[in-house]
Amino acid sequence: MARNPERRTALLDAAIEVLADEGARGLTFRAVDARAGVPTGTSSNYFTDRDQLLSQVGERIFVRLTPDAASVDTALRPEPSRELVAELMRWTARRMVAERTCYLGLFELRLEATRRPELRDRLTTVLRADLDENTRLHLAAGMPGDAETVRLLYLALTGLFLDHLTVPGLHAERELDELIDTVVTRIVPTDRPPLTASGG
Amino acid sequence: MARNPERRTALLDAAIEVLADEGARGLTFRAVDARAGVPTGTSSNYFTDRDQLLSQVGERIFVRLTPDAASVDTALRPEPSRELVAELMRWTARRMVAERTCYLGLFELRLEATRRPELRDRLTTVLRADLDENTRLHLAAGMPGDAETVRLLYLALTGLFLDHLTVPGLHAERELDELIDTVVTRIVPTDRPPLTASGG
Repeated sequence: MARNPERRTALLDAAIEVLADEGARGLTFRAVDARAGVPTGTSSNYFTDRDQLLSQVGERIFVRLTPDAASVDTALRPEPSRELVAELMRWTARRMVAERTCYLGLFELRLEATRRPELRDRLTTVLRADLDENTRLHLAAGMPGDAETVRLLYLALTGLFLDHLTVPGLHAERELDELIDTVVTRIVPTDRPPLTASGG
Repeated sequence: MARNPERRTALLDAAIEVLADEGARGLTFRAVDARAGVPTGTSSNYFTDRDQLLSQVGERIFVRLTPDAASVDTALRPEPSRELVAELMRWTARRMVAERTCYLGLFELRLEATRRPELRDRLTTVLRADLDENTRLHLAAGMPGDAETVRLLYLALTGLFLDHLTVPGLHAERELDELIDTVVTRIVPTDRPPLTASGG
C-alpha cells in the first residue's frame, strides 16, 4: 500500500466528487484516478478494494464536515439560548450548502450501505459518534432541551438537507434560514422553564 | 408504445425492485425486463427512454404508498388528538417497513434527480402534492397543530425513515414506535390549549 498521506486525501476528495456526481455505482478506481488527474492504477495502490475505499470516503466526509474546535468554541461562548441553537443550525445549513458534494456523497453512501453490511456498520459508527458528540456539546453548553431535543433536531435537519439537495422546490416559498428557524422554534424549548407542566 | 396497463404496472414494480437493489445507475431496460421475467426488449416498447421510465417509477411509488381513502376515513373517525396523530404515524412507519423497496426506491430517485432536472421537477410535484394533501387532511380533521406542525412531522419522519432503512443501528437502543412517539410528542402540541403563551 502506498502511504503518501496528501495523495491519499486527494484521492478521497476526488472519490467524494465522483460519488456526488455519478452515484455509488459510478465510484470505480478508474473514475477516481481520472477525477484526481493521476495515472490509472494509482487508487489501487492506496486502497485494497472498493469496500475499503467506500469506508475511508465515509470517514473523510466526516473529517471535512466536522468544524474545528476553535470555531465551535467561539460559537459556544455566548449565553446558551434557543436563539443560539438556531444560530448554530443556520451555520450548519450554510456549511451544507457550501459542502454540497460531501452531503450528497454521504446520502449516496447511506444507500450503498443497504447493499454492503461492512459499510453500513462503519457508517453507523461514525454517524452515531457524531450524534453523541453533538448531544454532549449541547448539554455541556447548557443549551435548552435534552438529549431527545438534539435527536429531533438531527432528524428534522436530515430531512430538510435531503429535501434541499434533491428537491429544492419542495419548500420553495420558504428560505432555508426561515425553515431552520421553524425547526428550532418548534423543537427546542424556550429558555425559561415553563410555568406549567406541558404534558410532553 | 405498447398499452397493456397491467403489463406496464408489472414493469414499473420490477423497476422499483431494481432501483432499491441496484441503485439508479443499475436501472436499465434490460435489468427491468430480467426482473419482470419478460423477453428482453419489452420495456423499450413501454417507455420512450430512461427519463420517462424514472418519472413513471416515481409516480408508481406514490400510488403504492398512498393509502386508499377507506383506510384513511376509518383512521380519522375517532376524536382528533395528539395520540391519534401518533397512531397514524406509527401506521405510516409500519407501512414504510412493509414497503421498504418503495421507500428505498424513492430515496434512490431523489439522488438521481440531482442529475436529471426533469425528474427533479416531477418528484418535486408529487412530493409537494403529498405534503399539501397531508396538511389538508390534518387541518380538516381538526388535529392539534398547524401547517408547520405537519411540515415538521414530515421532515423528522423523512430523517427517521432514511436512518431506519440505511443505518438501522443509529438509534438502536430505541424501538421505531418509541422514536415515532418522541417525534410526535415533541412536535405536535397538546390537545388542550396551553395555559401560558409558550413563545413558539
